[in-house]
Amino acid sequence: MNNKRKIAVVVTARPSYSRVKTVLSALKKHPELELQLIVAASALLDRYGSAVNYIEKDGFEIAAKVFNVLEGENLTAAAKTTGIGILELSTVFDNLRPDIVVTVADRFETMATAISASYMNIPLAHIQGGEVTGNIDEKVRHAITKLADYHFVASENAKQRVIQLGENPEMIFNTGCPSIDIAQVVAQKTALDFNPYQKYGGVGSKPDLSQGYLVVMQHPVTNEYQDSRNHIEATLRAIMKINLPTLWFWPNVDAGADGTSTGIRSFREKYKMENVHFFKNMEGDDFLNLLHHSKGLIGNSSVGIRECAYLGVPVVNIGSRQNRRDRGNNVIDVSYDEQEIIEAITTVLKEQKPDSSPVYGGGNAGEKIADLLKELPLQFHKTITY
Amino acid sequence: MNNKRKIAVVVTARPSYSRVKTVLSALKKHPELELQLIVAASALLDRYGSAVNYIEKDGFEIAAKVFNVLEGENLTAAAKTTGIGILELSTVFDNLRPDIVVTVADRFETMATAISASYMNIPLAHIQGGEVTGNIDEKVRHAITKLADYHFVASENAKQRVIQLGENPEMIFNTGCPSIDIAQVVAQKTALDFNPYQKYGGVGSKPDLSQGYLVVMQHPVTNEYQDSRNHIEATLRAIMKINLPTLWFWPNVDAGADGTSTGIRSFREKYKMENVHFFKNMEGDDFLNLLHHSKGLIGNSSVGIRECAYLGVPVVNIGSRQNRRDRGNNVIDVSYDEQEIIEAITTVLKEQKPDSSPVYGGGNAGEKIADLLKELPLQFHKTITY
Amino acid sequence: MNNKRKIAVVVTARPSYSRVKTVLSALKKHPELELQLIVAASALLDRYGSAVNYIEKDGFEIAAKVFNVLEGENLTAAAKTTGIGILELSTVFDNLRPDIVVTVADRFETMATAISASYMNIPLAHIQGGEVTGNIDEKVRHAITKLADYHFVASENAKQRVIQLGENPEMIFNTGCPSIDIAQVVAQKTALDFNPYQKYGGVGSKPDLSQGYLVVMQHPVTNEYQDSRNHIEATLRAIMKINLPTLWFWPNVDAGADGTSTGIRSFREKYKMENVHFFKNMEGDDFLNLLHHSKGLIGNSSVGIRECAYLGVPVVNIGSRQNRRDRGNNVIDVSYDEQEIIEAITTVLKEQKPDSSPVYGGGNAGEKIADLLKELPLQFHKTITY
Amino acid sequence: MNNKRKIAVVVTARPSYSRVKTVLSALKKHPELELQLIVAASALLDRYGSAVNYIEKDGFEIAAKVFNVLEGENLTAAAKTTGIGILELSTVFDNLRPDIVVTVADRFETMATAISASYMNIPLAHIQGGEVTGNIDEKVRHAITKLADYHFVASENAKQRVIQLGENPEMIFNTGCPSIDIAQVVAQKTALDFNPYQKYGGVGSKPDLSQGYLVVMQHPVTNEYQDSRNHIEATLRAIMKINLPTLWFWPNVDAGADGTSTGIRSFREKYKMENVHFFKNMEGDDFLNLLHHSKGLIGNSSVGIRECAYLGVPVVNIGSRQNRRDRGNNVIDVSYDEQEIIEAITTVLKEQKPDSSPVYGGGNAGEKIADLLKELPLQFHKTITY
Repeated sequence: MNNKRKIAVVVTARPSYSRVKTVLSALKKHPELELQLIVAASALLDRYGSAVNYIEKDGFEIAAKVFNVLEGENLTAAAKTTGIGILELSTVFDNLRPDIVVTVADRFETMATAISASYMNIPLAHIQGGEVTGNIDEKVRHAITKLADYHFVASENAKQRVIQLGENPEMIFNTGCPSIDIAQVVAQKTALDFNPYQKYGGVGSKPDLSQGYLVVMQHPVTNEYQDSRNHIEATLRAIMKINLPTLWFWPNVDAGADGTSTGIRSFREKYKMENVHFFKNMEGDDFLNLLHHSKGLIGNSSVGIRECAYLGVPVVNIGSRQNRRDRGNNVIDVSYDEQEIIEAITTVLKEQKPDSSPVYGGGNAGEKIADLLKELPLQFHKTITY
Repeated sequence: MNNKRKIAVVVTARPSYSRVKTVLSALKKHPELELQLIVAASALLDRYGSAVNYIEKDGFEIAAKVFNVLEGENLTAAAKTTGIGILELSTVFDNLRPDIVVTVADRFETMATAISASYMNIPLAHIQGGEVTGNIDEKVRHAITKLADYHFVASENAKQRVIQLGENPEMIFNTGCPSIDIAQVVAQKTALDFNPYQKYGGVGSKPDLSQGYLVVMQHPVTNEYQDSRNHIEATLRAIMKINLPTLWFWPNVDAGADGTSTGIRSFREKYKMENVHFFKNMEGDDFLNLLHHSKGLIGNSSVGIRECAYLGVPVVNIGSRQNRRDRGNNVIDVSYDEQEIIEAITTVLKEQKPDSSPVYGGGNAGEKIADLLKELPLQFHKTITY
Repeated sequence: MNNKRKIAVVVTARPSYSRVKTVLSALKKHPELELQLIVAASALLDRYGSAVNYIEKDGFEIAAKVFNVLEGENLTAAAKTTGIGILELSTVFDNLRPDIVVTVADRFETMATAISASYMNIPLAHIQGGEVTGNIDEKVRHAITKLADYHFVASENAKQRVIQLGENPEMIFNTGCPSIDIAQVVAQKTALDFNPYQKYGGVGSKPDLSQGYLVVMQHPVTNEYQDSRNHIEATLRAIMKINLPTLWFWPNVDAGADGTSTGIRSFREKYKMENVHFFKNMEGDDFLNLLHHSKGLIGNSSVGIRECAYLGVPVVNIGSRQNRRDRGNNVIDVSYDEQEIIEAITTVLKEQKPDSSPVYGGGNAGEKIADLLKELPLQFHKTITY
Repeated sequence: MNNKRKIAVVVTARPSYSRVKTVLSALKKHPELELQLIVAASALLDRYGSAVNYIEKDGFEIAAKVFNVLEGENLTAAAKTTGIGILELSTVFDNLRPDIVVTVADRFETMATAISASYMNIPLAHIQGGEVTGNIDEKVRHAITKLADYHFVASENAKQRVIQLGENPEMIFNTGCPSIDIAQVVAQKTALDFNPYQKYGGVGSKPDLSQGYLVVMQHPVTNEYQDSRNHIEATLRAIMKINLPTLWFWPNVDAGADGTSTGIRSFREKYKMENVHFFKNMEGDDFLNLLHHSKGLIGNSSVGIRECAYLGVPVVNIGSRQNRRDRGNNVIDVSYDEQEIIEAITTVLKEQKPDSSPVYGGGNAGEKIADLLKELPLQFHKTITY
């Protein structure tokens, strides 16, 4: 038994892991904190990139694994996955007895972390509240804010929103986004220092990357379930016509994943996409370096809005998924329309690389958050400020 | 198959049923709506007053029953009860395919209703958001507001709070509290029109009520779990010293129920409480009539704050459970202190009956809510207003 | 990390704990075994005697607690309790990584232990297979035999039955019942060496025990759910008429508990039972000593069939619950009939104390089982022998 | 409300559906029975062939869908899938109130059906008990026999085994296997009456089938999880060397599916398999016709043991999955060894087609079972016969 404050962090997906990696590192090396890393949901699954493998390779010890993804890839399964998550996480918290639980962002299943911790009277910290988007994440994110006791937000706008939501301003901290910590290191690199085909496998042709390349990452949007196949096909056709070397990343799990995945698979069976290679996943810093040296990112990933702002990588942002998120001037917004996508890419290809923008912080969020988790008073009782 | 809009209402506890009974009646008789009544959690259990029996006796047809209370009466069990609730309710919603789901107030397990409905893209209506209290309910209530699409609030202050929480003002309606609808009918009665001992059984002595009597109802407070036994003992001692005819109501289920229940049971085994009778439960309108003709209510029930305001019944409100709820001038607030409780009761007994106060509405909330559920656009997509 | 073989024992109820206590002791003190004690289901609940408190007082360390009892006390809740048990126990086994899992007897929820272990390829030992009774236990018991890899049976008849069920005879061991180990110690005692009222509280009058007394323990029978209230009332009326000092033990949890419990409570409110005291629970050895010095046991507890055979205590065994279990000549079987019960008690009171009968073993089952768990080959693969 | 006896059949996988299709048809058209078809587990999932689509296309109405497959494809997930199945099915049975529940064969998740029904006192019928195999199915199958009230077995050996398991002989019926009902119809066909590439898509090359072809179907074996990749690679290499036109069917879900699926996918990326086409699934009668006109079946599917016996199709049966199942003289058993597999295929190719064998029945099992379900007394109470 030691006297270190125990900080449980629940990671439920590959992108969440990338986002909080520097927080985990800072917690791990903090002399007065004990990290209890819990890996759950799609972060454990092959189909969604096995974040767990990267986590282990990065040297983090895993305190508990929680399998809670119910197959079905429909909305009912998303609800049930959350219910199973609560059943499992409450057992885990009961065993690990953390002093604080940390939940990341706004994926639907993170609600399980928030409910288990808050119902068990464990102080809850939320990373990345106060932002605005346009689907179920929007409901989840702000509901978690109302369950959380500490708020580590990524931008000034986000901070103002959490204040207006009635949270105690003394418990809201604009630490910047921890994903920028990694971008800050990557930004120093002057070349792609690995061979993506060799290191990450994947399928499809292997276009020559030396003259520049595009990156695509497009996720299904939950509340447009029926349309996800149409959406991805617009992008597929646009990329086929642009016909530049392209590295395409498979979507992560969400209700709707099926439409997107099926769309990609069918398209590949039908057309040779001779300039396109498909990856299931990539370690966060390699992925950022890939973006850093690319001609631009196409799709709807939040990486385009956040890390690419800092890195100054141009982004063609498709559809509603990043609506109303703060963005730098590296982003061109388009709808799910083949022609619009083609035009935006063409613009990107002929313009200069944008400047770095500090909208999501300056690169030391991980350490700021760890220090706060050491110092903050342990409390789980709050009332709305108005 | 008909074309009526299907409205699923989930009732999870005896007090919630009392609160929405007039809403259920209005939905049932509305020609263009179909009521799908789902009875869940402690509303199904003998130990907590079997609300289900009253529901059936009142002539409501039950579309589904959901058993989801995990035994244990600790905080982990509360979390797991919510997790099981999500698993079960998502199956129920999948079968019943409601157009709108209605959730009531802020008990911990109501979160299961809110999550299942919102994750399944079913428009969610929340009755009684925007209020302020001092425990886990506070987190639950506002989190549900952020998951809900329509808000039927009970007071003007509540409405302002929901607006400030970033909800669309066009979807927020101050209907008053439906519990006042029943109080409004009861307020006409000039005498106690039933014999409580005969009609409701219960245990303990049967003091003569004709010269006046007190009513006690005190629930455990979730986040003061360890103290609930001390709290109830202060009240027990105070009531024993006052030594007037007293009707005591058993607490409903909550993490902590055990401390309170054990406290009462032990006290009874030790002392003869010759002027006290204990009830497990009572139909809502009988209970209000009992209060209406009483000398006052002691404890921490929200009935003291709400219906008693309308009825002009004096209330000795103990502890933090109703903190910051809007209240009329019928309430004296005291802490968990035998002496303070005795003094407040003494004051109540010698002063005049307070006037009726309209702070929670005027008695037609049920019909207002039914009409809105008929007219509101079906939508489950929203973004914060700022 | 050590090299001891890890033996996980799952205890789900007060009577199961009594039954395997000497096995737990033998495992705990065995130098080459590590006991992983898992306490689950009603063994954790106040309402059913909090076996967990006795377990801790007896000095056993608890490796994990599993709350899985779903309230409702109906057959659906029994099924769901088992489902939740599987969800929880599989997480526990995943964390503890036992080499062997031990499950006890045939209560419905023990199926969760058997399924989790066998599905996870952990060798499963079953204590007390091969017996015969007349309700759902019968299905559960033999189904668990077909899932188990090792069988520690309590009688020769049981052994023959497990062989005939197609199990490998080399994996079937007639160790005797470990509950007899305790009876063997208690049988040495020449007097009641504690005051039951002082030590165990309880409610009701406190009859003088010095001139002899009866003990009553009657559980509801699952598949006669509707009748459990009638059944208990026959016994209540018989005991009231016999009107000797009587110590009555509350039933344990089962679907149907409600009928029995309600029956007792109502009867007590209606009639003074001046010679009857009610206990919720008692430590196993005190209970056996109480029986050892009693005039007889009335009800349907398996203690009457097993330990009372060894102790030579006369038993009036009511109804079908112990049908077809091997029994000594200390048992008179009667149906749920007031008159039959009265006559059997009258017979018992006037006859001589029966001799001790070795039908369930000779008192060293705990050590035999521990030694086997050390020596048996670890295997989870089997096929039927015919 | 009608007076028909309600028969709930739970189908949890594509092969189970094929197996009981004629039972479903017979139930559906029986004038005095009402079929309640429940589709659950992998039968609902794209990844495992979406049996649900075939079920709907075949004109069966689905009374309830149960999503209960927990992702993870490991043994813990198999246990949890069963636990969730119990939670969900008990709700379904509570709503549908069947008079009899029917469960099929021995997949791990069928235990959920058996437990929910037997715990809820609903008479349980088991199709295909009494057989012998060599993995977890073996435990599951016989445990279900001990939970079931009626037994519809497929062979005389199976009947003798169920009798010896202590079941009442009057409740055991050798109806033959309903899968033979379909084989009996298919056996009349004189040619392949559909184009498999056109009708079922799939991936890979499209070899000419007119000169004969092989069929491959190999599932992972649960308790050899680590080895499933090695096993499938032996078969892949053998088939590549034989180099005849081959139609390969994707495995169904099981703990271990991942090893098999990954093995196939990797092999395909590495080698051109120019004579091999891969199907995800096929309607049962088309599949049987494909086998009927093939040169032989390679793998470990039970179709090789059952339907191929009736059809007289030669089978190279690999590994332990079908160990000790009754078989006709159409089967050559080999181990997971490339060379053995090649030799067995060579033998098959040069020998004559075997005669039809009646070991699993004569083709009218569906109607026999429906008639029995109409006539059998409703009972859920049993005791072992010895």
